[in-house]
Amino acid sequence: MIDRIDHIAIAVQDLNSAVDTFVAVLGCERSSVTIHEVPAEKVRVAFIPVGQTKIELLEPLGDDGAIAKFLSKNGEGMHHIALATDDLNRETERAAGLGLTPLGEPSEGANDKRIVFLHPRQTSHVLVEYVEPKSPHQPSQQS
Amino acid sequence: MIDRIDHIAIAVQDLNSAVDTFVAVLGCERSSVTIHEVPAEKVRVAFIPVGQTKIELLEPLGDDGAIAKFLSKNGEGMHHIALATDDLNRETERAAGLGLTPLGEPSEGANDKRIVFLHPRQTSHVLVEYVEPKSPHQPSQQS
Repeated sequence: MIDRIDHIAIAVQDLNSAVDTFVAVLGCERSSVTIHEVPAEKVRVAFIPVGQTKIELLEPLGDDGAIAKFLSKNGEGMHHIALATDDLNRETERAAGLGLTPLGEPSEGANDKRIVFLHPRQTSHVLVEYVEPKSPHQPSQQS
Repeated sequence: MIDRIDHIAIAVQDLNSAVDTFVAVLGCERSSVTIHEVPAEKVRVAFIPVGQTKIELLEPLGDDGAIAKFLSKNGEGMHHIALATDDLNRETERAAGLGLTPLGEPSEGANDKRIVFLHPRQTSHVLVEYVEPKSPHQPSQQS
């Protein structure tokens, strides 16, 4: 079941500058922002909470990751929308059964989560990610 | 103050088809979707609730509105992110004071709301909308 948008991801050239900008847009505290590197995905990531969702800013690490390639082709902008699910496998099978196209098998993403993307050709060129906490039965770290 | 994302807007060529697709993506009920026309903005709009936010699908009415022009230039895809505020004038002044660029004065948008956009050049090419209920002092319809 999907009950909320987990995050909205934006590809940016300069993470620190983009964090400053979106903190200004949101009027939130800089201290609410968490930043970390995900070498496996070749990105540096900032999360800015907004209600029950987050703005995720993605800056490339190096020149050959998915975000570096996205920026090279498209420039800065919206990258994907992530939908939170309590059962990634079931959600992925359900979507595939309705004619949507999961891009590969569920895999481990940033922040200790499991993720899968859907092919954007079928979703109005919007890249959609399903995301499930890695250990849904453990106590959440969120308040 | 901004405390949630009000909606995420996607420009589409065929609203009915896009509604079917995103209902499948979300695994929600078709009956949760509301559709209406906004002739002043030359769009037909569908809202699909997801937690405290919504997916907004925008189909052009005619060939010369903003969404028709967007589709002609970019094809289908993400159009804007709308942030809910309880005081649009104050939010707009605050943002302008921090160097962001409101695009004109607050105006009436769809669904009985007041809105203003920020220039996307300063926000990583993501078009951001501030949105305020038209009558913020009336009881909310949300539970």
